[in-house]
Amino acid sequence: MKLSDMNKSQLEAMYSEVCAQYDEFKSRGLKLDMSRGKPAADQLNMSNEILNCLSADECKSRSGLDCRNYGVGDGLPEMKELFAELFEMPVENVIVGGNSSLNMMFDCIAQGVSMGFGNGPWAKLDKVKFLCPAPGYDRHFGVTEYFGFELITVDMLPTGPDMDQVEELVKNDASIKGIWCVPKYSNPTGITFSDETVKRLAAMKPAAPDFKIFWDNAYMIHHLNDNNDQLLNIMEEAKKCGNENNIIMFTSTSKITFPGNGIAAMAASDDMIKMLKKRLNYQTIGPDKINQLRHLKLFPNVCELKKHMKRHAEILAPKFDAVIEALTTQLGDLGVIEWTNPNGGYFIGVDLLEGCAKRTAQLCAEGGVVLTPAGATFPYGNDPKDRNIRLSPSFPPVAELKTAMELFCICVKMASLEKYLGK
Amino acid sequence: MKLSDMNKSQLEAMYSEVCAQYDEFKSRGLKLDMSRGKPAADQLNMSNEILNCLSADECKSRSGLDCRNYGVGDGLPEMKELFAELFEMPVENVIVGGNSSLNMMFDCIAQGVSMGFGNGPWAKLDKVKFLCPAPGYDRHFGVTEYFGFELITVDMLPTGPDMDQVEELVKNDASIKGIWCVPKYSNPTGITFSDETVKRLAAMKPAAPDFKIFWDNAYMIHHLNDNNDQLLNIMEEAKKCGNENNIIMFTSTSKITFPGNGIAAMAASDDMIKMLKKRLNYQTIGPDKINQLRHLKLFPNVCELKKHMKRHAEILAPKFDAVIEALTTQLGDLGVIEWTNPNGGYFIGVDLLEGCAKRTAQLCAEGGVVLTPAGATFPYGNDPKDRNIRLSPSFPPVAELKTAMELFCICVKMASLEKYLGK
Repeated sequence: MKLSDMNKSQLEAMYSEVCAQYDEFKSRGLKLDMSRGKPAADQLNMSNEILNCLSADECKSRSGLDCRNYGVGDGLPEMKELFAELFEMPVENVIVGGNSSLNMMFDCIAQGVSMGFGNGPWAKLDKVKFLCPAPGYDRHFGVTEYFGFELITVDMLPTGPDMDQVEELVKNDASIKGIWCVPKYSNPTGITFSDETVKRLAAMKPAAPDFKIFWDNAYMIHHLNDNNDQLLNIMEEAKKCGNENNIIMFTSTSKITFPGNGIAAMAASDDMIKMLKKRLNYQTIGPDKINQLRHLKLFPNVCELKKHMKRHAEILAPKFDAVIEALTTQLGDLGVIEWTNPNGGYFIGVDLLEGCAKRTAQLCAEGGVVLTPAGATFPYGNDPKDRNIRLSPSFPPVAELKTAMELFCICVKMASLEKYLGK
Repeated sequence: MKLSDMNKSQLEAMYSEVCAQYDEFKSRGLKLDMSRGKPAADQLNMSNEILNCLSADECKSRSGLDCRNYGVGDGLPEMKELFAELFEMPVENVIVGGNSSLNMMFDCIAQGVSMGFGNGPWAKLDKVKFLCPAPGYDRHFGVTEYFGFELITVDMLPTGPDMDQVEELVKNDASIKGIWCVPKYSNPTGITFSDETVKRLAAMKPAAPDFKIFWDNAYMIHHLNDNNDQLLNIMEEAKKCGNENNIIMFTSTSKITFPGNGIAAMAASDDMIKMLKKRLNYQTIGPDKINQLRHLKLFPNVCELKKHMKRHAEILAPKFDAVIEALTTQLGDLGVIEWTNPNGGYFIGVDLLEGCAKRTAQLCAEGGVVLTPAGATFPYGNDPKDRNIRLSPSFPPVAELKTAMELFCICVKMASLEKYLGK
């Protein structure tokens, strides 16, 4: 029965009941963490072989280069080939970096600020704005907030960013310099951009000549089941409109091998990659080539990589199922929550009744389960309707996750009932 | 006998002789590389143990953190402790980064450009200038050139940068935002800054309130013999004058373990480190902690690190000796060259007669020995007197190095004689 169909005494009775359940939970002194999209220990264990897979004799690259020494600022050709296949881009358009794709994105934004992309440094402008489809990834928003940009919230739809809003915004405002995108198994809603969204993004003619689409394809092969979402190659679409310089693509192996020492990569058009490589020449002595060799040893080709991802899915899928099951059985009838059921990625985004997200997160925290802070999925950490929460099922073991979800559902009920009862 | 004491026929006779020697060398089809300060393979072999030293059970930090996963943006505390001892700085003032200290320096300059250091972004200024003691490190100069700064050459003396020049320049010009320094076993002259130089740098009151001394202590423990140069702790000196925010210190293990995947670190004052750590929070998911654990396994303390450096010295010292010996015996009497005899580092800087450096490097290249390009040790690659050449003895085996030095000495003679003979 929906809460909206209950009368006051029914609501009060239910509230007493869930409060008692909550108190019982609280007394257990739980300490569970669902706050971040971290792989679990058993996922990491799958890659332990990478730690000691490279003998001293194997430190040479395909071309014979001693990878222990200096050289090769933009990554080993063989490593680029692997990422090129994943990006569906030519090898020449790929740069392989360090262990953090966020770092690569930060550097690109920093380059826009300090040097610009052919139209002067953004630092010289009075105002720089950036489009933030929300709910989205807090660390993306953080980068552009750090540099003092004005963050403009764009609604995230089941098809991707609301393209009517995006097109309208970029059309006349040259101070809007870019947009953050996680196009596949989006963080946190888990959706994949529709073909129409990709085509419209690729075809946009923003007022800013140096507008950039930050295409963070973090979950490109991170499927949970066999119903793989299909994402259109945005670069192919952009080329058709002469817009290929608008796009910078990113990915990493953080959630393939180890988040702490994976390998990040980026890809861009001929012109853009030339500009980005020029910066690299000055920026660094080059990425860790030994770590590239380690990754190539484990994953000589994309086929091996995909096999490995299937094993990740075997660990992750039951966790996602546990979350969906809890939401369905415990909250499904109440009309207080909507959620996504993603085919990949690391998150399930839920929308509660307006004004209930912070209260739910607070109740969870006091009950012993840490969630991603409510609001974190919006620019400036401010969810204007206070209704979105990002659930990250990956890190806790299934048993703990089930307990955490029991508590979460109780907290959602409490917060929703309090809203109805005006408490 | 000095060339200056020879008459024309003596000079001509000598020229014919060295030309014949040169032609003989050229006919051998040599292909030797003395261009960069790369450790040799046998030096790298000393650290091969690091490749496979960490079992899956050992991936936890001292605090129990799983280093394979996300977390710890500024380095493991135990790794900071090691660098803190090397920097002679408190642990709290250290940041441990990725594999490239050049990258950390680039990021700091980029931060000055994009955000500034409390006095507005440098990108907003019409002109930014940077002091480049020369001969110096080409990749330092490159960073500031990339950002479009005006590079101002300051003379490098046996005591460090010419402090009369430096003090005079920074006193009234607020557009001068910093100075590059390799204070110990300087690249390329091999000298260590005198106590007086360090004190004067520390005590300067530049017109720019956001002036920064980039203190790249790349060779802090890279001694070649037991006559270790002593470098004063500039931060201690700066504190006495309330100037501690002027200094950012850098170092790395690039020439301790592997250049391709060593560990870089920086240290700064309380205020500065706070600002730098704030940026880090947005910039990256954190450095490679597994690589930090590997380094800690091999070098649990500074004592082990220093033992390891002694073994490097055993390989390097004979190479430096071979260079000095060649210069002494083959050129010592001619009055055409001056050189340094460093107690550490990776370079020997030589000064030829004015106008002879490019010609010498050209002759060497045509004879089969690649040197660091003449001029590279000066801003914009332009040595105004065309006399400095950086010799890098580390990479070739001793036998090859001796051959290369034979050719080098012949080329110096040829270039010098051509100058005297007006050829």
